[in-house]
Amino acid sequence: MTTQAQKETTVAFVLYPGLTPLDLIGPLQVFTTLGTYAQLGLPVPPTRTVVVAERVEPMDSDTPVKLTPSATFDQVPDPDIVVVPGGGMPTVRAAGNDAILDYVRSAADTAQVCASVCTGALILAAAGLLEGRPATTHWAYWRLLERLGARYVPEQRWVEDGKFITSAGVSAGIDMALYLTERLTDEATARMVQLGIEYDPKPPHGGIQWNTVDRDIYAPVLAQQLAATLADKPELLHRLTS
Amino acid sequence: MTTQAQKETTVAFVLYPGLTPLDLIGPLQVFTTLGTYAQLGLPVPPTRTVVVAERVEPMDSDTPVKLTPSATFDQVPDPDIVVVPGGGMPTVRAAGNDAILDYVRSAADTAQVCASVCTGALILAAAGLLEGRPATTHWAYWRLLERLGARYVPEQRWVEDGKFITSAGVSAGIDMALYLTERLTDEATARMVQLGIEYDPKPPHGGIQWNTVDRDIYAPVLAQQLAATLADKPELLHRLTS
Repeated sequence: MTTQAQKETTVAFVLYPGLTPLDLIGPLQVFTTLGTYAQLGLPVPPTRTVVVAERVEPMDSDTPVKLTPSATFDQVPDPDIVVVPGGGMPTVRAAGNDAILDYVRSAADTAQVCASVCTGALILAAAGLLEGRPATTHWAYWRLLERLGARYVPEQRWVEDGKFITSAGVSAGIDMALYLTERLTDEATARMVQLGIEYDPKPPHGGIQWNTVDRDIYAPVLAQQLAATLADKPELLHRLTS
Repeated sequence: MTTQAQKETTVAFVLYPGLTPLDLIGPLQVFTTLGTYAQLGLPVPPTRTVVVAERVEPMDSDTPVKLTPSATFDQVPDPDIVVVPGGGMPTVRAAGNDAILDYVRSAADTAQVCASVCTGALILAAAGLLEGRPATTHWAYWRLLERLGARYVPEQRWVEDGKFITSAGVSAGIDMALYLTERLTDEATARMVQLGIEYDPKPPHGGIQWNTVDRDIYAPVLAQQLAATLADKPELLHRLTS
């Protein structure tokens, strides 16, 4: 264990109404576990997690649980790592919300790492942060990501490009967070965190068989949902549909 | 698609202060995705998820996010499936809380499936539901589970015994929920849900190397924490430590 005081790493997770909670909670559990180990006196660097939003109040999710953040955007202007989770149409709404875009842009400017989970990449892209960059998102939203200027990379759990790292849909945030934990610390520490959350995944029938997946199967449904969701945001609707 | 109206399956998740949110959110996201598919008109049985607790109010977790349930125990007396998530010492507190134990016992009595994630198994065991049964929990808590009367089965993501199904630590709830989804429906539907949450796990260095894990490494820490947590519950403390 080092005796020299180490600077604390602050990892900020962006919360907004209607998101997919597993996008947020997967990586949040990984980094909070890392922070707990430091508090127990284990030789890992001090890490603080914080969940930030426009307002500190309970917010709906795409499940019956509501989530309450721990701080406002203003209270955490300069996180070391910022993580933007995704969801369905509420995430598209968030990609047209100036308070969220402004926070993500300014946090990304000073952060070492700007990360997204699932369709959180659409928010980064709408903020102008993924222009021309290789990136990933939930498989069903790949065309929307490309229409916002990024280059979709299929079948990777995460895609790194400079300080930007995007992960695939929902559960992929866990894999990305373990990778980032190793980047912050070392392999042994990342393995200790993996053991803490007992992440030894065994999907009942193995992984996804990508050769059977049509990534455009939901395109007609998405087109309808976008038109209904962005009736008052014609510019963003135009970008996402053409 | 069936034209006959099918009975809705209600899946109730138990929430209490201080739990590990990934224990709850993993399976909740799986079953809520299943429910969404039914709403979209896909040929899957109607499924409703609900998050129940003593009171409907924001509750702390072991991360900075607070969680608010959607109903009280009284409002969902007879779920078809009940899922009990875990955590650290707050779960041990919950295992000594009569309101939680009474709900879990009565829900388990009428449910088709009574499930736990991680140390949620300690709550089932404290309620007297796992006496003599094979079961699993978070690896570091295996002795506590045995002291409450269950038989710990190592290195399985979930262990099924009659209507009782227990999963290993934290992230294992996702695997168990996909298995239960298949039991409720069929393999094709479970795969569709897996695709929805893009669960194609790729831990950066693969799974856990169990031959390197000492399951008793935290025993001294746990003994201290138990003594501090259960000072006012000497009977449960005695059961958990001897």
